[in-house]
Amino acid sequence: MARTGRRRGKPDTREAILSAAREAFAEHGYDRSSIRAIAAAAEVDPALVQHYFGNKDKLFLAAMESPIDPAEMIAEVVEGGSVDDLGERLVRTFVRVWDSPAGKPAAAMIRTMVSREWSSRLLREFLLSQILRRIAAAHVITEPDRRFPLVASQMIGLGMARYILKIEPLASAPPEFVVATIAPTVQRYLTMELPTG
Amino acid sequence: MARTGRRRGKPDTREAILSAAREAFAEHGYDRSSIRAIAAAAEVDPALVQHYFGNKDKLFLAAMESPIDPAEMIAEVVEGGSVDDLGERLVRTFVRVWDSPAGKPAAAMIRTMVSREWSSRLLREFLLSQILRRIAAAHVITEPDRRFPLVASQMIGLGMARYILKIEPLASAPPEFVVATIAPTVQRYLTMELPTG
Repeated sequence: MARTGRRRGKPDTREAILSAAREAFAEHGYDRSSIRAIAAAAEVDPALVQHYFGNKDKLFLAAMESPIDPAEMIAEVVEGGSVDDLGERLVRTFVRVWDSPAGKPAAAMIRTMVSREWSSRLLREFLLSQILRRIAAAHVITEPDRRFPLVASQMIGLGMARYILKIEPLASAPPEFVVATIAPTVQRYLTMELPTG
Repeated sequence: MARTGRRRGKPDTREAILSAAREAFAEHGYDRSSIRAIAAAAEVDPALVQHYFGNKDKLFLAAMESPIDPAEMIAEVVEGGSVDDLGERLVRTFVRVWDSPAGKPAAAMIRTMVSREWSSRLLREFLLSQILRRIAAAHVITEPDRRFPLVASQMIGLGMARYILKIEPLASAPPEFVVATIAPTVQRYLTMELPTG
């Protein structure tokens, strides 16, 4: 479709906003990207971005085209639990969502995003701002910024080994095996005493 | 370059063998791929494959075009240690190799391989047959087949988080931080009591 400058409500305006959002989130990270700057890059009014997408979080979600809605996952992880079994709830929910029909397109998305530097950054910002930070917000976790990458390392590795590289017998193991073996690792990263320095 | 049927010693023969090897290892796995079958697929004599590449392991290495020689890594992990600190040696060596200049091309290779289904399978076979199985061969590890995917999940996740997604502060953390936090996980996967069933 040919771009014909500033437009309102046309499909290519929406796509121009999403494209500017992807670039901003990948280039500057979630925190340092503003709706105002994204609107400027897309050459539209900031009010139009808000009208289309609501807020920055929802814009990020739309830009990612994630087959999994993290809000749903987070509610399940956060609700009715203490920090003492947070690792278990994280791993259990992760496996349930990825074992569901949404897992296949999600794996395809991860494959594609990881293959390029800029989309890897987008994926990282998504993980940190949309998932880990929100889970942390509901719990008392000390030094979350040092712990998150450790948690991410195990969760990403679980996703890669079970759903993308499909390493057997882990790829076909029942969820209980995954929870019993991997949840203690995640729990340790969330609450262990960290090395100083 | 045009293919002109069976040839001996020409560059395209070598490439034909490597291409057949990649396909076989990805399609049938390392164990079920034979030099004979790869030679047949490449339309050359098996003796020629042996002449060019030596044995199946060396053919696999050449087919992977890995910037890291696993034999060197494995020697460092295996030598002079018991199973009690195997997790630590694994993580320490992994970080040393990936922090070295070889880490950048290795990360680029992983990005590309993960993006497609067939090359993901090649990567999985490489990890299992060329790295984990060899490390296990030098130590007494019970039920290695159930433990390897767990070890792989943490090592792959560490690689992704530190070198590919570059999640800070883990991406810039000193090796000692990585060893102190992640080696106990790998050690646990190698020697913990596994759930039954």
